[in-house]
Amino acid sequence: MALVVQKYGGSSVATAERIRRVAERIVETKRKGNDVVVVVSAMGDTTDELLDLAQQVCPAPPAREMDMLLTSGERISNALVAMAIHSLGAEARSFTGSQAGVVTTSVHGNAKIIDVTPGRVRDALDQGSIVLVAGFQGVSQDSKDVTTLGRGGSDTTAVALAAALKADVCEIYTDVDGIFTADPRIVPDARHLETVSFEEMLEMAACGAKVLMLRCVEYARRYNVPVHVRSSYTTKKGTIVSGSMEDIPVEEAILTGVAHDRSEAKVTVVGLPDEPGYAAKIFRVVADAEINIDMVLQNISKIETGKTDITFTLPKTDGPRAVEQLTKMKSEIGFTQVLYDDHIGKVSLIGAGMKTHPGVTATFCEALAEAGVNIDLISTSEIRISVLCKDSELDDAVRALHAAFELGGDEVAVVHGGTGR
Amino acid sequence: MALVVQKYGGSSVATAERIRRVAERIVETKRKGNDVVVVVSAMGDTTDELLDLAQQVCPAPPAREMDMLLTSGERISNALVAMAIHSLGAEARSFTGSQAGVVTTSVHGNAKIIDVTPGRVRDALDQGSIVLVAGFQGVSQDSKDVTTLGRGGSDTTAVALAAALKADVCEIYTDVDGIFTADPRIVPDARHLETVSFEEMLEMAACGAKVLMLRCVEYARRYNVPVHVRSSYTTKKGTIVSGSMEDIPVEEAILTGVAHDRSEAKVTVVGLPDEPGYAAKIFRVVADAEINIDMVLQNISKIETGKTDITFTLPKTDGPRAVEQLTKMKSEIGFTQVLYDDHIGKVSLIGAGMKTHPGVTATFCEALAEAGVNIDLISTSEIRISVLCKDSELDDAVRALHAAFELGGDEVAVVHGGTGR
Repeated sequence: MALVVQKYGGSSVATAERIRRVAERIVETKRKGNDVVVVVSAMGDTTDELLDLAQQVCPAPPAREMDMLLTSGERISNALVAMAIHSLGAEARSFTGSQAGVVTTSVHGNAKIIDVTPGRVRDALDQGSIVLVAGFQGVSQDSKDVTTLGRGGSDTTAVALAAALKADVCEIYTDVDGIFTADPRIVPDARHLETVSFEEMLEMAACGAKVLMLRCVEYARRYNVPVHVRSSYTTKKGTIVSGSMEDIPVEEAILTGVAHDRSEAKVTVVGLPDEPGYAAKIFRVVADAEINIDMVLQNISKIETGKTDITFTLPKTDGPRAVEQLTKMKSEIGFTQVLYDDHIGKVSLIGAGMKTHPGVTATFCEALAEAGVNIDLISTSEIRISVLCKDSELDDAVRALHAAFELGGDEVAVVHGGTGR
Repeated sequence: MALVVQKYGGSSVATAERIRRVAERIVETKRKGNDVVVVVSAMGDTTDELLDLAQQVCPAPPAREMDMLLTSGERISNALVAMAIHSLGAEARSFTGSQAGVVTTSVHGNAKIIDVTPGRVRDALDQGSIVLVAGFQGVSQDSKDVTTLGRGGSDTTAVALAAALKADVCEIYTDVDGIFTADPRIVPDARHLETVSFEEMLEMAACGAKVLMLRCVEYARRYNVPVHVRSSYTTKKGTIVSGSMEDIPVEEAILTGVAHDRSEAKVTVVGLPDEPGYAAKIFRVVADAEINIDMVLQNISKIETGKTDITFTLPKTDGPRAVEQLTKMKSEIGFTQVLYDDHIGKVSLIGAGMKTHPGVTATFCEALAEAGVNIDLISTSEIRISVLCKDSELDDAVRALHAAFELGGDEVAVVHGGTGR
């Protein structure tokens, strides 16, 4: 008998009809002789409706109360799924994040999981009950207040519970059939991947593959929890994310896929003195604003001026704040100006095979050149090549790379709409 | 500086606009130098929407999950009110019933408050914050599950918190201007009452006055918490429920008002052997079905048959179940038949003055006779006379008694729609 943790996204429980379908899948898993723990996101647009209400009563709602408000969404969906399971003749009990022992930091709206003490979950399982746990939420260690985990919070809740309960697998049910060599919305012949190593999935997620959030993959890797990504709407076998890249025999090592990201913006600090410590000053300003930067490029300084430029990318949402903070320091640090561009896209090629296949970078650049895509900035890791380009050229870039490295399959993936948690 | 507990019903927070208005009233109370604890019901029709969802996924939802589902309604309204308060520049923190230390029995859907340990509420108050507590809910002492308190639960939460915090007053904001000598919807010249003793309010509530639920008044009386019933929509002074009837000087003792109740049905067990113990058998059957009975009448037995009839009233909602249970026992107990009538109404006259004013019963019956109301059944207490009549004659009966005892005033009350919690 296995212990299975399943997570269903908001679109999978958007209506009573879908909730009943999800319940059938859960009961089926239980009847196969498994212990089942289920994490459910808030129903479809519940979160948006609550956010709208909040806006109507308060332009800038306090984060603590926002968490109190939003967590009711998961409470509703989980109770409803428990009821649907009950109507199928199985026992089900739902718990809030707090009741399930999901202990977090007290950063409301973006708390991190510190510890999971699922005593009540374990007891309910031992009593033969299916257990539902409200995703995306926990209770802060010091103030005992209700917290939310931010984007990807429900996936992380599921993986964290799987780790704490030593589950055999964590099944993430989503609106696609698994992990593909590229976004099927852009590349119709994108090939479905049966297995992906944690490292490759990390790079994919970091490069914008939205199926799994980075933090969830990091958590799964740290505790070595196999994650099975599947569709809520089909019975296709999905993708298993597990094991280390090192386990893949070098001969079989291949390229995993092409990821893309439209969520970043580019900041260029112009006319910075080309002396030690100035780059550091720039990044300190950004870091103090608690903004994560991604790619970085420092141009060779122009001899005649002794000045240089520094370019970096960051989340679009943080762009304006970064520009504001940097502009404040203009005279103090001593640079000419700050340029900002949020019409950019990032395309990345990921794969363990990169290490063993020479000339990948060359083929990469040739493919983009042929597609007429102008490369703005390049960064690489052991198993990844990423470049920045115009956002208008991003789709072409993805298709060109996917074709050049012959990642395509023949099956066409089904695509549904999805939600943020 | 006083400690004030305020409770706002669902209609008072039905929209973002009303929530903002409620927030203004709360902040005003705080700015006057009071410590303020607020209990808010779920927004307008939230509960109905959740019940509807539950029905769609499960015909007979488990009570535990129903409580998990419904309590999210108060969580939402309380967080929103806290936000609205915040936007007015005041500090506010919302707590779930569990966080506020509302400990209950584990009867889901109709739990009773066992204890209130408002440590976190006290701390928040000491830090100068306005505190919001989700009404209608608590946490069960043994299983630590989320529970709901049933009808009038939010009022009871407010009074229980006021008792535990030794508040100076518990203000119940509702959709009428306070307690009246009769329902203004039936008697336009119903007079507003400035003060009512606990005993009188208990009788009023027990006889169908819906402004305050019986359990809430019982709680307030036991812990001697003054309850101030006021309108959310006006600044009228409302009604203070406090003190014992004994405190009212006999000379001033008057009649409080006329209450009515359409929620009961009448059961008559016909042809019961007129021997000791048979009535007991009947009421045991009803009691075992956990049904509360109200009025009881046993007719004088007909000498020729040695048989008698027993008539009693009970909540309409329990009627069919009572009839079913009794019919099952027909042959075993040995009676002829069970009659059921749910087209009845109960009208009651309440007042401490009854003890000192002779002839009240006579005037009472004369008034009804003149109004052509046929009396079906009479029951009395030290400060109350109640009779059963046809529901179609109930309004006439209320008006006739209100006029006969000259309870009328000249001010006409404003009436809004209200909700169940």
